[in-house]
Amino acid sequence: MALCDQSLPNVRAISPYLPGKPITQLAREMGIPVERIVKLASNENPLGMSPKAKVAVEKALVSLERYPDDFELKHALANHVALGMEHIVLGNGSNDVLDLIARVFLSPGRSAIFSQHAFAVYPLATLSAGAELIQVPAKDYGHDLEAMGNAIRIDTRLIWIANPNNPTGTFLTYPQLKAFLRATPPDVVVVLDEAYNEYIPPLERADTTAWLAEFPNLVVTRTFSKIYGLAGLRIGYALASVAIADLMNRVRQPFNCNNLALAAATAALDDHEFVARSYALNRSGMEQIVTGLKHFGFSHLPSHGNFVTFKAGDAAALNQRLLKQGVIVRPIGGYGMPEWLRVTIGTETENFRFLEALDNALTRPQQ
Amino acid sequence: MALCDQSLPNVRAISPYLPGKPITQLAREMGIPVERIVKLASNENPLGMSPKAKVAVEKALVSLERYPDDFELKHALANHVALGMEHIVLGNGSNDVLDLIARVFLSPGRSAIFSQHAFAVYPLATLSAGAELIQVPAKDYGHDLEAMGNAIRIDTRLIWIANPNNPTGTFLTYPQLKAFLRATPPDVVVVLDEAYNEYIPPLERADTTAWLAEFPNLVVTRTFSKIYGLAGLRIGYALASVAIADLMNRVRQPFNCNNLALAAATAALDDHEFVARSYALNRSGMEQIVTGLKHFGFSHLPSHGNFVTFKAGDAAALNQRLLKQGVIVRPIGGYGMPEWLRVTIGTETENFRFLEALDNALTRPQQ
Repeated sequence: MALCDQSLPNVRAISPYLPGKPITQLAREMGIPVERIVKLASNENPLGMSPKAKVAVEKALVSLERYPDDFELKHALANHVALGMEHIVLGNGSNDVLDLIARVFLSPGRSAIFSQHAFAVYPLATLSAGAELIQVPAKDYGHDLEAMGNAIRIDTRLIWIANPNNPTGTFLTYPQLKAFLRATPPDVVVVLDEAYNEYIPPLERADTTAWLAEFPNLVVTRTFSKIYGLAGLRIGYALASVAIADLMNRVRQPFNCNNLALAAATAALDDHEFVARSYALNRSGMEQIVTGLKHFGFSHLPSHGNFVTFKAGDAAALNQRLLKQGVIVRPIGGYGMPEWLRVTIGTETENFRFLEALDNALTRPQQ
Repeated sequence: MALCDQSLPNVRAISPYLPGKPITQLAREMGIPVERIVKLASNENPLGMSPKAKVAVEKALVSLERYPDDFELKHALANHVALGMEHIVLGNGSNDVLDLIARVFLSPGRSAIFSQHAFAVYPLATLSAGAELIQVPAKDYGHDLEAMGNAIRIDTRLIWIANPNNPTGTFLTYPQLKAFLRATPPDVVVVLDEAYNEYIPPLERADTTAWLAEFPNLVVTRTFSKIYGLAGLRIGYALASVAIADLMNRVRQPFNCNNLALAAATAALDDHEFVARSYALNRSGMEQIVTGLKHFGFSHLPSHGNFVTFKAGDAAALNQRLLKQGVIVRPIGGYGMPEWLRVTIGTETENFRFLEALDNALTRPQQ
């Protein structure tokens, strides 16, 4: 048998993830100067990273020849979430911890449930582990928890939930989530991906990590890639029962988090001012973009994240017209939404550039 | 059934990797000031990182909120190894690419072969993928290629080879390796882990990447964690046929390498002076340590790496006496060598501190 036919069939079936187009790539492809490009495609923090984190990174530049030591960040996170360090699993971005959970509980002959239009890493992690994927139709572009509960089979080991969801921005209230956890069999893992947690208005937000004691099958994942502005450094974490965290740590690569990410995240946790400023900028920017989208007659999905998804019609054509003007947003055909585009909330200037480019694309479509 | 009983049995069977003790941990445990501690436990580069890489990292600090873009490093590596970019898979350290290969070819019902005393990540990656592990007894503490070839079963999909091997420093000549590749069935993947490649004397070294055309089942892995001094940043790579590289990229996390590691590695590739200086320091330091070990009557394994492994007898006791003096070396009981210790070649001063601590431990064992 030929060599590559010996690879696992589930791996051959994977379609690679399509990232947001990097600024440098657009510059190479269209000859647009980097400084004229606005990237609102990957839900990055337009304010950059926390100044405290930056100082910590600069300080940590002295010993990069040393393998990482994750003690300080685990200690800081334990204080942050008021749980023991043995509940924490660090990841090379939260993508990594999502993958670890899949590797602990999923294999051929098992299944995992996720929602239509939910984050692309859930099917990737499920398929990489060789398990079957059960996609449950969305309700109003968000998770239909009742239908997801009804989809549980005897071989189901894991349910993926994103709250808020990317790329739709939809939100499940905490009473809804808690009712779902109560109704779910205790031997099915529920992964609650809270990558965008810090963008939820405080009055609507609850501390789900306090639920771990009641629901040992709950795994909460979070990231430093969004409001903390550390996407380029790669750092995220999972909070779980001690038993699940121990299993995840067995499949974790021993040095999965780099020294600078560990230093930056430890400092970023403490920079409440930066988080508050990022939150406020996102609220005003969301208002700015939503007002613009309405003005141009686009319908959009109300979002609890740092992005908004709008119905563009011929999204591929509109996207090309935006790219030509140096504005990168995210086509989401891969999420079963070929007529929609997702735009990240940027600074006031970036949002303006996006709306201006949109205006040009609509009024001068031949350009 | 209880929740954790639903986890995969192969995951429950994994013993987590035991890293070298971090300097900060010894400081916490024994109250020794950090500046008085010498760590020769993790085969790190005593010269730190390349000055060119440091400049590149400092320059890359501006946009850490952006998701990584790996184009530049892949481009530079393609030039470095004279292969197309489509042959390259980047990893979060070479640990990551070793894991990716396992995930492409291994699963329950399949087996992988590795040598006794070979690098710990091979059994970890094999067990995480649910495959059976076939350990072949070592010959003179190194790989017994003939026995490894004879161990191939109908369900064997992968053979792990470290050259030089860690933790024993043993080396297979290139004619030996090539003969082994010729004798191996073409549908069995041979992973050749060359993490310590750059420490091999130039006259003994061959360019194995040129073999990929002849052996499509060969995967060569390398790292920036050793002679390039970037262990804390996490970056490594695999070179493989286009078909295998494509499969590995499907299970790869889309942003598995961080921005600063990418920038540092790109610059480090160009710093031939730093690599030459690191190589020379390792040769003289090896001489210094081996002479000292002989003086104290220890037998050692001749090493092609940046470390040397010596027979300590009661290794646990000797290790404790070294730790009390602030000297961290590596016990390798986990490698089936409970009487041995592995010491990394450091700077002349660090090597002296190690030998001095060894002298104290031997002549004043009660201290």
